[in-house]
Amino acid sequence: MHDISILTEADLRELVPLDAAAVDVVERAFTALAGEGVVMPPILSMELPVANAEVDVKTAYLPGFDGFAIKVSPGFFDNPKIGLPSLNGLMVLFSARTGLVEALLLDNGYLTDVRTAAAGAVAARHLAPEVRTAGVLGTGVQARLQIEAARLVRPFERVLVWGRDPVKAEICAYDLAERLGIEVVVEADPARVVGESQLVVTTTPARDPVLRAEWLHPGLHITAMGSDQPGKNEIDPAVFDRLSVYVPDRESQCRTQGELRSALAAGAVPEERTYAELGMVVSEPALGRKSLDDITLVDLTGTGAQDTAIASFAMTRAKDRAAGTVIRA
Amino acid sequence: MHDISILTEADLRELVPLDAAAVDVVERAFTALAGEGVVMPPILSMELPVANAEVDVKTAYLPGFDGFAIKVSPGFFDNPKIGLPSLNGLMVLFSARTGLVEALLLDNGYLTDVRTAAAGAVAARHLAPEVRTAGVLGTGVQARLQIEAARLVRPFERVLVWGRDPVKAEICAYDLAERLGIEVVVEADPARVVGESQLVVTTTPARDPVLRAEWLHPGLHITAMGSDQPGKNEIDPAVFDRLSVYVPDRESQCRTQGELRSALAAGAVPEERTYAELGMVVSEPALGRKSLDDITLVDLTGTGAQDTAIASFAMTRAKDRAAGTVIRA
Repeated sequence: MHDISILTEADLRELVPLDAAAVDVVERAFTALAGEGVVMPPILSMELPVANAEVDVKTAYLPGFDGFAIKVSPGFFDNPKIGLPSLNGLMVLFSARTGLVEALLLDNGYLTDVRTAAAGAVAARHLAPEVRTAGVLGTGVQARLQIEAARLVRPFERVLVWGRDPVKAEICAYDLAERLGIEVVVEADPARVVGESQLVVTTTPARDPVLRAEWLHPGLHITAMGSDQPGKNEIDPAVFDRLSVYVPDRESQCRTQGELRSALAAGAVPEERTYAELGMVVSEPALGRKSLDDITLVDLTGTGAQDTAIASFAMTRAKDRAAGTVIRA
Repeated sequence: MHDISILTEADLRELVPLDAAAVDVVERAFTALAGEGVVMPPILSMELPVANAEVDVKTAYLPGFDGFAIKVSPGFFDNPKIGLPSLNGLMVLFSARTGLVEALLLDNGYLTDVRTAAAGAVAARHLAPEVRTAGVLGTGVQARLQIEAARLVRPFERVLVWGRDPVKAEICAYDLAERLGIEVVVEADPARVVGESQLVVTTTPARDPVLRAEWLHPGLHITAMGSDQPGKNEIDPAVFDRLSVYVPDRESQCRTQGELRSALAAGAVPEERTYAELGMVVSEPALGRKSLDDITLVDLTGTGAQDTAIASFAMTRAKDRAAGTVIRA
């Protein structure tokens, strides 16, 4: 018998807002991931064609963290037809010393939203040195959160939003302006978003590129976070030819699920080339951007390391504030 | 927001005893597993050498079941040094229609014990036609539960127990006699256990065979449940040469984790041979034992299908009896 903390989405929204501390803990996850002693098995993925659904399970053990999280992310894409969100899920935090369950984080995907946006902020902090205008392609939850997270590390005063659906783009721009108190403009032409921004985040579920090589310009940093599955692709493979530095969150995952997968498939990069991962660039800036004119791309597929970090962080905050419900089991 | 049921080990021990109903639901899991529309991804396995630990995640979607379980089984093998059990874990039951979390089954491995023993009973029911004496190699929790489960389907009056540690064998025999009210005898020679039994269950973590080919005799049925990882091996590969029928719980898993793995490695069976799985034998008895003199072996590596079945069963019983705690999340 031992105590298990149960934290609901409401608890977690209060305990873990998207803030500088969340960005820092996710940065720590990336540096740990780039170091020794990490264990991050491949994602367990179960497709359920009969329900138009997919379930992913991620985990990672990170030295320096007392626990490890196992995250289950069900995506049931017909849910909106019955008034439910597509994405759900929970994280379970285990002691890395005994394997006992420490906490059940019933977050319905909220912590994933935070740790994903925080990774974008880590990328911006280390690869986007000067941002006056930030651009975002896509109009969903991550479009909002990525811009919000980037602004924690870069105090830009203008945001450009592009989306396939102009109404959704308007709502996204309205929400962002409301939240950040800065100028947010809908731009109908994605080429102009990229052309006028020093930082562009792509946040779409695109299966064909939404960001083209001819739009690149010196100094641009791109964070691509939409591709997390074979079949998804936001970045024109020809972009790779013009990059100064390409940085995967986890190279092995990006090879099969990220923008690197599409670039490899198109023959845009040699199979045998290897890359410094985000955590290596954090620890050793010389592996990243070398000049203000460099063009850089960070490819975020989402790692179990981030889940372990954000779940541990949530648990620490919950303990400090005696939040949630405790059950003996 | 929706309701989630939380059931502790104590709740689950009361709701899901090892009984005929548990055997039946696990049998249904095997027939579903042998049918169309099943999705059972490979096990996600994370080794943590730094903690002398391993964490496994299993899942399966089975047509005919309203939910699917994701089971996390941490094994932390230094835990006994600090007075904790090595094996722990929980199951999470999701709706197969919406992906929403329906129940958290904080069973510390109890449901795994039940569904593993129940699989042994399914094997005995379909492949061990006449059992006067049952033998067990091994003296742990499964040694007890496998014999208890087998007795639900075959009313034998005598049990022989062998274990490497004679004291543990005595305690196991005592417990079994107490529980079943029949004669249970410790036998120092495993050859005699096998020679005098019509059903033998092997329940050890052996890495070298504990059951030798020269001990086989007509009519014998063996259920081997100890090997669930590459490296484990209870059954002498030469046994395969003398078998009338070999039945894996899941062929793909047995090839990498079961007794079949060792037999293949030893060259005892041809690589290209395929086998009828347990669920196929249940549905079509002609695929199993053909005469009372046949020698048969069922290889149990443990399947996510059993987890989904037992978790669904636990949830149904919990609803019927309004057991557990409900949380809105």
